[in-house]
Amino acid sequence: MIYDLVIIGGGPAGITAGIYGARKKLNTFLLTKDFVGQVGKTGYIENWPGLYKILGQELLESFKSHLKKFEIEIKEEEVREIKKKDGIFKIITRKNNNFQSRAVIITSGRNPRPLKVPGEDKFMGKGVSFCSICDAPFFKDKIVAVVGGGNSGFETALDLSKYSPKVFILEFGTKVKADEVSQERAKASGKISVITNAAVKEVKGKDFVESIIYEDKNSGKLEELKVEGVFVEIGSLPATAFIKDLVEFNQRGEIKIDPMTCATKTPGLFAAGDVTDIKYKQIVIACGEGAKAALSAYEYLQK
Amino acid sequence: MIYDLVIIGGGPAGITAGIYGARKKLNTFLLTKDFVGQVGKTGYIENWPGLYKILGQELLESFKSHLKKFEIEIKEEEVREIKKKDGIFKIITRKNNNFQSRAVIITSGRNPRPLKVPGEDKFMGKGVSFCSICDAPFFKDKIVAVVGGGNSGFETALDLSKYSPKVFILEFGTKVKADEVSQERAKASGKISVITNAAVKEVKGKDFVESIIYEDKNSGKLEELKVEGVFVEIGSLPATAFIKDLVEFNQRGEIKIDPMTCATKTPGLFAAGDVTDIKYKQIVIACGEGAKAALSAYEYLQK
Repeated sequence: MIYDLVIIGGGPAGITAGIYGARKKLNTFLLTKDFVGQVGKTGYIENWPGLYKILGQELLESFKSHLKKFEIEIKEEEVREIKKKDGIFKIITRKNNNFQSRAVIITSGRNPRPLKVPGEDKFMGKGVSFCSICDAPFFKDKIVAVVGGGNSGFETALDLSKYSPKVFILEFGTKVKADEVSQERAKASGKISVITNAAVKEVKGKDFVESIIYEDKNSGKLEELKVEGVFVEIGSLPATAFIKDLVEFNQRGEIKIDPMTCATKTPGLFAAGDVTDIKYKQIVIACGEGAKAALSAYEYLQK
Repeated sequence: MIYDLVIIGGGPAGITAGIYGARKKLNTFLLTKDFVGQVGKTGYIENWPGLYKILGQELLESFKSHLKKFEIEIKEEEVREIKKKDGIFKIITRKNNNFQSRAVIITSGRNPRPLKVPGEDKFMGKGVSFCSICDAPFFKDKIVAVVGGGNSGFETALDLSKYSPKVFILEFGTKVKADEVSQERAKASGKISVITNAAVKEVKGKDFVESIIYEDKNSGKLEELKVEGVFVEIGSLPATAFIKDLVEFNQRGEIKIDPMTCATKTPGLFAAGDVTDIKYKQIVIACGEGAKAALSAYEYLQK
């Protein structure tokens, strides 16, 4: 069986593309690692038009329910590779399942950027986390560190401060980049301390995280901070491991698209949302891009 | 007083731009002719992510309530002209009010395309209408005509068929362009007749519409159809009367933008949504574009 359209990714862009594809009566298949993604890990969202305040998870749930009203196949499986031969795309998953399609939309979004220091992988789920929304309650009464002094680092710290008696924010640069509002809230909490010029070197422990080692870039000395949790918030990387020479990338590793149509350099292959080189990464923008990509795929398939 | 940002238009793009502008703490002012626009005149919408089925008016109402949670000035007034001098925009309304701003986003959307035949203007509101959602109930038990055999023409006819005993669809081309589904529904209603090759020449009547005159392009003869209502659904035109040499237009009269940033050729002047040359005109796409434009305006204002 050959699908009209396979969508890879179950975030805002992918789900919107699915709704549009299904409404255009395309034989559509949505393949996604999971339905969590960045939005599912976000706390309250206040800039989705029409809803003043909603949890990321709830918004995503409403998108999913909408999608499921249509005739569309959905599978939670991670894609390993995409090939194109004789005008047909072949999508191979990590479980070695194969799917064929005449058009593909990539909406795989982004993954958190890792620290790449010793101990990070070893203690993943044992004190190291990329999601305070998911894991903050596990750190009740424990001292924790957040790596990254941007908006998401501060939001994570504020989130953790509801449970933890003390939260350190470690920022690599000479000053934090978070909005004034977030900085003020952090100060007001009375529980959050910021350490700038801190280059994290290692996460240490026995079975679980016991401390974090960083270089104080002012003094050049290594410092040890006793913490039981390390939350990594140093940005994100586009999730493109499964796609190689079918698309072009910009210097940030994002898929280059024609912003009018979401087309990539390969006919029939489109990309939308945060995985692409669009300038602003926002839920409502990703949804718009997903709709565009589906309408472009529809046009492509009519030819 | 000079605003940071004036947004012209109160549809999905404009309201989303307003939400984003206000959240960025820009001193934002939204000027709009009204809050009806194309969405307000639409029946059920089924492709706004997260809501399976909602009336256009209700969706717009939810956008408006969201916007009003923020500190933002809103005025319902039609813009007549925009000028730029010494880096400051001057916006003049039809009531001769003046506003100044450092950045402007145009989100004025589209107006229905008129027939431009004798009688159309004269009988506007007296049988001639551009909005079945608004006016259909006034045509209870009356025979009506819809001009235009595209999707919106068929939707209008279906809408009217709930009230009217007989609805004619007049299509200029040799065949209608509406989706199969809409054509089938029209057939199933038992009340809708399609006349193709019909070039509308005049709307006639005394105080109210009494008939419509069209040329049968097959025979070259003029035909008269006794109807008490004429609904015009022959597409739309971008609403750009107030803006002249500050932007470039494409051949359809749409404002040309950089699709990455919504910038026009004039620094500080952005445009978003259906008034621009973006390829697909959809609510969720317009919202995404509105967000983009506001974030671009914010960046521009930081410089």
